[in-house]
Amino acid sequence: MERILRINMTDRSATFEDVPEKYKERAGRWLTSSIVHDEVPATCDPLGPENKLVFSPGIVTGTASPTSSRISVGGKSPLTGGIKEANAGTGWGRRLANLGIRALVVEGKAADGYWLAKITCEGVEFEVADAWTGEKLSTVYPTVFDRFDGVESVDICSVGVAGEHKMAAAGICFNDQNGRPSRYAGRGGLGAVMGSKGLKFIVVNDKGGPGLTPANKDLFDSGRKKMAAALTEHAITKPEGALNSYGTAVLVNIINEAGALPTNNFRFGRFDGAAKIAGEAIFEGNKERTGATLYNHACSPGCIIRCSNTWHREDGSEHTSCIEYESAWALGANCGIDDLDQVAELNQLCNEYGLDTIEIGGTIAVAMEGGVAEFGDGKRAIELLHEIGKGTDLGVTLGNGAVATGKAYGVTRVPAVKGQNMPAYEPRAIKGIGMTYAVSTMGADHTSGYTIAPEILGVSGKLDPMNPDKAELARNFQYATAFIDSTGHCLFIAFAILDIASGFEGMIEECNGMLGTAWTADDVGRIGKEILDLELDFNRQAGFTAADDRLPEFMLTEKLPPHDVTWDIPDSEIDSIFGTGS
Amino acid sequence: MERILRINMTDRSATFEDVPEKYKERAGRWLTSSIVHDEVPATCDPLGPENKLVFSPGIVTGTASPTSSRISVGGKSPLTGGIKEANAGTGWGRRLANLGIRALVVEGKAADGYWLAKITCEGVEFEVADAWTGEKLSTVYPTVFDRFDGVESVDICSVGVAGEHKMAAAGICFNDQNGRPSRYAGRGGLGAVMGSKGLKFIVVNDKGGPGLTPANKDLFDSGRKKMAAALTEHAITKPEGALNSYGTAVLVNIINEAGALPTNNFRFGRFDGAAKIAGEAIFEGNKERTGATLYNHACSPGCIIRCSNTWHREDGSEHTSCIEYESAWALGANCGIDDLDQVAELNQLCNEYGLDTIEIGGTIAVAMEGGVAEFGDGKRAIELLHEIGKGTDLGVTLGNGAVATGKAYGVTRVPAVKGQNMPAYEPRAIKGIGMTYAVSTMGADHTSGYTIAPEILGVSGKLDPMNPDKAELARNFQYATAFIDSTGHCLFIAFAILDIASGFEGMIEECNGMLGTAWTADDVGRIGKEILDLELDFNRQAGFTAADDRLPEFMLTEKLPPHDVTWDIPDSEIDSIFGTGS
Repeated sequence: MERILRINMTDRSATFEDVPEKYKERAGRWLTSSIVHDEVPATCDPLGPENKLVFSPGIVTGTASPTSSRISVGGKSPLTGGIKEANAGTGWGRRLANLGIRALVVEGKAADGYWLAKITCEGVEFEVADAWTGEKLSTVYPTVFDRFDGVESVDICSVGVAGEHKMAAAGICFNDQNGRPSRYAGRGGLGAVMGSKGLKFIVVNDKGGPGLTPANKDLFDSGRKKMAAALTEHAITKPEGALNSYGTAVLVNIINEAGALPTNNFRFGRFDGAAKIAGEAIFEGNKERTGATLYNHACSPGCIIRCSNTWHREDGSEHTSCIEYESAWALGANCGIDDLDQVAELNQLCNEYGLDTIEIGGTIAVAMEGGVAEFGDGKRAIELLHEIGKGTDLGVTLGNGAVATGKAYGVTRVPAVKGQNMPAYEPRAIKGIGMTYAVSTMGADHTSGYTIAPEILGVSGKLDPMNPDKAELARNFQYATAFIDSTGHCLFIAFAILDIASGFEGMIEECNGMLGTAWTADDVGRIGKEILDLELDFNRQAGFTAADDRLPEFMLTEKLPPHDVTWDIPDSEIDSIFGTGS
Repeated sequence: MERILRINMTDRSATFEDVPEKYKERAGRWLTSSIVHDEVPATCDPLGPENKLVFSPGIVTGTASPTSSRISVGGKSPLTGGIKEANAGTGWGRRLANLGIRALVVEGKAADGYWLAKITCEGVEFEVADAWTGEKLSTVYPTVFDRFDGVESVDICSVGVAGEHKMAAAGICFNDQNGRPSRYAGRGGLGAVMGSKGLKFIVVNDKGGPGLTPANKDLFDSGRKKMAAALTEHAITKPEGALNSYGTAVLVNIINEAGALPTNNFRFGRFDGAAKIAGEAIFEGNKERTGATLYNHACSPGCIIRCSNTWHREDGSEHTSCIEYESAWALGANCGIDDLDQVAELNQLCNEYGLDTIEIGGTIAVAMEGGVAEFGDGKRAIELLHEIGKGTDLGVTLGNGAVATGKAYGVTRVPAVKGQNMPAYEPRAIKGIGMTYAVSTMGADHTSGYTIAPEILGVSGKLDPMNPDKAELARNFQYATAFIDSTGHCLFIAFAILDIASGFEGMIEECNGMLGTAWTADDVGRIGKEILDLELDFNRQAGFTAADDRLPEFMLTEKLPPHDVTWDIPDSEIDSIFGTGS
């Protein structure tokens, strides 16, 4: 019987309770968004005691299902002021699942100091963690692993100094399979929420845990095999396929070619230096520097796709893991920086300080627009990261993200929606993703509904990115994504299951096998809508209206080269997606 | 025939147009809010080219009516994101009225540089003003007066360096009768709007202007005489009465005694050093330092109340004018500072840099809460003001106000509504003003509806400040205030006209005399409601909901000494004021 674990940071107490009937099918994003919706006052201060931080492994997380080690993290976002779910691939969620914990709910707020919570099959223990604060995470993690018998025994969830400073760009960090603090539930400032509660670490040891028992093992096994077969077959997700070879940064050249790679704070759609920071350049650079052909590794146990790269220095030593597409773009093209070693250092510093690379890349670009640095000046960008890490007067502004930085330095060209900086796809050049940015419950977010798949990659058909008729696409992708985010699967399974019908069937069979449900393909849409409706309702209660579902003003008038396009989707079309118009 | 003057800063053009039929009775706040509502896209960037900055003298501004030299300034606020009207007492508005200009609408945005616009009866001339930027206003104003034949010929409207930096706490500055840059349309960051347009100065010379002709001179004269009689009679407004003797800072001891003087960032309701920064202390201090009994002066021509003080240094030289109650509190009690010379210096630096004293006092208090300074450290507070003036990395955060500063320094105790810091009355201890803060279209604002009059001062009856049954009071005071703000009268006439019926009649007769209307007392409420409805509609279109009509979370749980009270007005009661609940 799975349970919900509540940790109250006000008095460092912990209580277990049965999963209520209402939530019995819910896990991952479905459960985090349910608990946030049902328990967090929508108008509360995101950094106050009323907010809650909810962790939930997905439906199949912790099982033998492939590519399913995602942990969802939810709460009210200090960046957007709305509901937030961010997820990461890490063994940490598997261990939580193996302990029979469907959700961990962190409540209250410590009066002072920072704490470590250790969760085992015997319960929760707290210890003072102040000695571990103020440091880079790569310094801290090894000592915490030493204290708790290593990466074989535990996984660690933590915030960096950004979370300690309650910065709105602070993410929540998990270790990868090598124990590196490198896997992030990055967006929306959930690291600041964790920091505000005085919680520095959550260490999970699942030894002696009950594990997970499928309701119908045969059905589950059938499902996971279909999923594995689809992932192993699809060109994007298969071993030595696009992602395994070049990582997500394989997209740099593709999106640049499409004229939709935001460059110099969304001023251009192409970047001259794109090829120098692309996945292919990472692959070739590693070969040159290490003398080996390095295929990528899995961020978490049981992944077939294995898309995480490691970048090496000239001397062959390890520099950072992982340079995702979003990070290569945010810290590279969007800042006009085409030097992979500088991008890698910026990436590593985000990992060290506990920051969302997308928000920080967007922030540095806005700071560059405001005259704090020059576009292309990687050295200065690295200094800016250290300002954040030190919490200087400049750093605390930058650490609060692009909108805060724009306000401080008088910049009106801030490419954000609901306070969150846009990711690596230019909405003016790819209309469906722009509509998704506009209406997403999360603020500008590509992972809310990755319409790039059909609009650019030709997955599940091929659509013209400039075609404005995408309201239904934007809606349906968000519903399907909310479902996938609840299964515990990485969103990247979407490439395979959109193109390979048996993979999609496999996902449903896995869920039915675990839960004993009888879901069909229709339930994917139904459940996705249910999740979105909860999130939209929370946001409505928090004060969001159609006025918040708008792209920034400059995109309506400023033409984006090379296609010379503006954002021209009518408000009525945007409001039709979720029927949120007034 | 009065006209509307439009200045377009994009191409430095100016056009005159007739006042449309629809606006023919409208002036002051009624007209600024009408034009903002009708012409400014509610979701526009407040610092972008779509926002407009609207100036309008009141219905009787420029006439012989007493205490009527207010100029209303409207636009979309970069601080609140909603509509804003701020007004100031100055000869500038009288000159505009004498030129027959009912409203000045500043549109567009200069591509670069700062400009001076000179308005005369011959039209508008622009000249480059870059040489006047980056300086303290007391340095700049004399040279501008020299250039345009002195304070006898012109009055000046300007922004300081805060407006040049587009800081959300930047006000719009006007000169007083001595030419001192000291009278502010302070709140809501309208200085940043003016700065964003590249407009540094608006100099008005009314020589040769047509002046104002009442539709019914006898009626107007009857009205203004009744108004003058009421002001001359009432204990608060009469010559050598409370305001003329001690200025608005006469309230320091009164509100402190009521346990409602926010102290150390709204942590206490009484301040040990209150008497040292009170109006009485200013009066006595000046007497000691100058050897003279100094009654206060008028901020603008034609005022009977004459409440503006001047504070002098130990050597008898002039230090600053004017230390209002709000400024003495914001820069004094709220920061724990009880040294009048330090408060005066902070006040003067706000005037020099072009800042709203309320927002900046609130900001320094939040910064103190965040560890940037210690409560009571006036020297450090003065340094912080210079950081703003220099636009340092710390200064650009402080200059953006209390909410931005709270975010940067991890402070959740930020006493703001809709992004605007509360003024000098503790809502927990005076419920009606708290309800007004909650629902005001302007963000937390005492001048939206000064319920302090009955709740504390016994004007228009005496109510218990702790009585929660104030929804109707809060609504009706906001309606009446919106009307007064449209007449051109200073809000301080309210003391006299609330208690003296003939004064109230006088106000209506003045308006009817000028406009040829036949308004009765009922029209005051009707017009006030019409104005509020326009403002509420703008805010609704901008995305405001009932969720924005809430006091900060800490006030709901933290008991305020000495009365040990929390904010306990139900949301439903607040939402009943304007029927904005969902």
